[in-house]
Amino acid sequence: MSAPKSSTSCKVMLSKHVANVLLEEVQEGLKTLEKPPHLVGFLANNDPAALMYAQWTQKTCEEYGFRYSLREVSRDEIEEAIIAANADADVDGIIVYYPIFNNRQDQYLQQIVDISKDVEGLSHQYIFNMYQNIRYLDPETKRQKCILPCTSLANIKILEYLNIYNTILPYGNRLHGHTICVVNRSEVVGRPLAALLANDGACVYSVDITGIQKFTRGEGLKNRRHEVVDMEGATLKDVAPLCDVVISGVPGDKYKFDTSLLREGAVCINFSSEKNFGPEVKEKASIFVPSIGKVTIVVLLRNLLTLTPTPNNQRLVQNRRMDNVKPAAATERPGTLEANS
Amino acid sequence: MSAPKSSTSCKVMLSKHVANVLLEEVQEGLKTLEKPPHLVGFLANNDPAALMYAQWTQKTCEEYGFRYSLREVSRDEIEEAIIAANADADVDGIIVYYPIFNNRQDQYLQQIVDISKDVEGLSHQYIFNMYQNIRYLDPETKRQKCILPCTSLANIKILEYLNIYNTILPYGNRLHGHTICVVNRSEVVGRPLAALLANDGACVYSVDITGIQKFTRGEGLKNRRHEVVDMEGATLKDVAPLCDVVISGVPGDKYKFDTSLLREGAVCINFSSEKNFGPEVKEKASIFVPSIGKVTIVVLLRNLLTLTPTPNNQRLVQNRRMDNVKPAAATERPGTLEANS
Repeated sequence: MSAPKSSTSCKVMLSKHVANVLLEEVQEGLKTLEKPPHLVGFLANNDPAALMYAQWTQKTCEEYGFRYSLREVSRDEIEEAIIAANADADVDGIIVYYPIFNNRQDQYLQQIVDISKDVEGLSHQYIFNMYQNIRYLDPETKRQKCILPCTSLANIKILEYLNIYNTILPYGNRLHGHTICVVNRSEVVGRPLAALLANDGACVYSVDITGIQKFTRGEGLKNRRHEVVDMEGATLKDVAPLCDVVISGVPGDKYKFDTSLLREGAVCINFSSEKNFGPEVKEKASIFVPSIGKVTIVVLLRNLLTLTPTPNNQRLVQNRRMDNVKPAAATERPGTLEANS
Repeated sequence: MSAPKSSTSCKVMLSKHVANVLLEEVQEGLKTLEKPPHLVGFLANNDPAALMYAQWTQKTCEEYGFRYSLREVSRDEIEEAIIAANADADVDGIIVYYPIFNNRQDQYLQQIVDISKDVEGLSHQYIFNMYQNIRYLDPETKRQKCILPCTSLANIKILEYLNIYNTILPYGNRLHGHTICVVNRSEVVGRPLAALLANDGACVYSVDITGIQKFTRGEGLKNRRHEVVDMEGATLKDVAPLCDVVISGVPGDKYKFDTSLLREGAVCINFSSEKNFGPEVKEKASIFVPSIGKVTIVVLLRNLLTLTPTPNNQRLVQNRRMDNVKPAAATERPGTLEANS
């Protein structure tokens, strides 16, 4: 007698389940505040997609008890408008909808947002600390956790929910033993995500059209932060079968992940708005997360909450953007703020 | 500036931590009983090692509130002595210290122990169900969980404690995505362990001097129980680097596991009384469990508790040894009860 066949064993995990857990934490945090945190969104382009995203953020904020103000300004006014919001004690978080100038001036504007109100973690010091595996603005007292970019952090929160982070291991090493493929190496999501995962102990293959890079902390996690090695000539065929987690966020059909390369029982996460995995992924993956948008928005609220002063505290960080960057201690890789693709 | 080096990141997990968690469960269970479960050990050889093991079991039983009686009998009396204990309502569990005849008569004796008192899970029906991935003696009502052999179950309890079993996945599939190397394929530990891990969803490479076998439930866990494939010509060098967990229990120095073959961040467990991993394993493993004896003994107590009738129930299983074995439904692989190495 042949063994009975069951239907697919893949667990399809909808991101709302992860979002709900985070929302509960956020709601608990809200209760400790005298008034709801106030997020201000700046719209200085005529992009209907940006407007839709702003309206969606507004709806979500209001649904969960946060305040949201959309401020539509011209390009010429945006810098002064951000500076005014930085100084306004009633503003807890600032989000700017890019592109505005669609050139390096946008990166300049990102540095105008005060670090104490930067809910997207785009300030240089946050990005620097992220790549350097420095988790607090004040590493000695550890009161001020660094803000991480929302989409990268959403992926991490999903991996935590899925128990890929192993809590039996010490904080900071909880991905040790995992090999993770990140398809996308943009400065906005893919490269930060690869760095964060490697800093947490994973061996990460970062895949992009320009080639494959390996991010690790070395054998036995002997290094304090990740190092990056170019894998000359390597292709997805070489690295995908090694990976127990595959995270993909690329546009268009031509980058659809080839399921035949997938390791049996791998965990697959799609963070693209397009479907980077075909339905056949369920025949092979142990867990499949088809989208992460609901988690990303809650992570934004969580970042906002982190930045909002509690009744007993002044705003923790104010204009300390560059205070404890020690350029002699480490060198940032070029390109961090170059692209916004 | 080069990154600062930290000492080894390997977490050395002593089995007492796992044992303590299981002991708490066992102590809770004990509270529901009117009198402590009674384990009877039969010693019918002059092996000083067996006597020591019996005394250690006695000490552990008494320490944790169980009753233990050591009965020393001759070879000629052992069969009748077991039959008497089977019928004795004051005996809840029976353990026989082998070897006695040191031939197939020992396997005959294993089948004399009533299934309702078989704390070591050596009865054919338990072994059959284990290989067939049948978890209950009564699959419909699910009141009578099958007893699993102590050392194999100890390894599983350790993997659960270490979060290698992923509780986000459904019960029965929680090792999906893991690739596990088991070095040792004895009928007593290695082969049952490989089968149990594969039945739980892992891809298992079972390594022995006779070669390597792959135990899996197929792509997407499409099969209800594991299948075994001989890997002609494959060596440990081929399979070890694929494995995120390595479990070894072999005698002697010449089978010491070659750390250079180990996957970065693998979890390593030694269930041999000898050191199957050298100290250098800590340079590469994420978690290392140097021994499991403390867990094995608690698993024995746990099995005893499982078999002990509660105040409201009669002994659940009595002489039902072969009742629901359906030979037509599946064929046991030859050799299950052949070796006791």
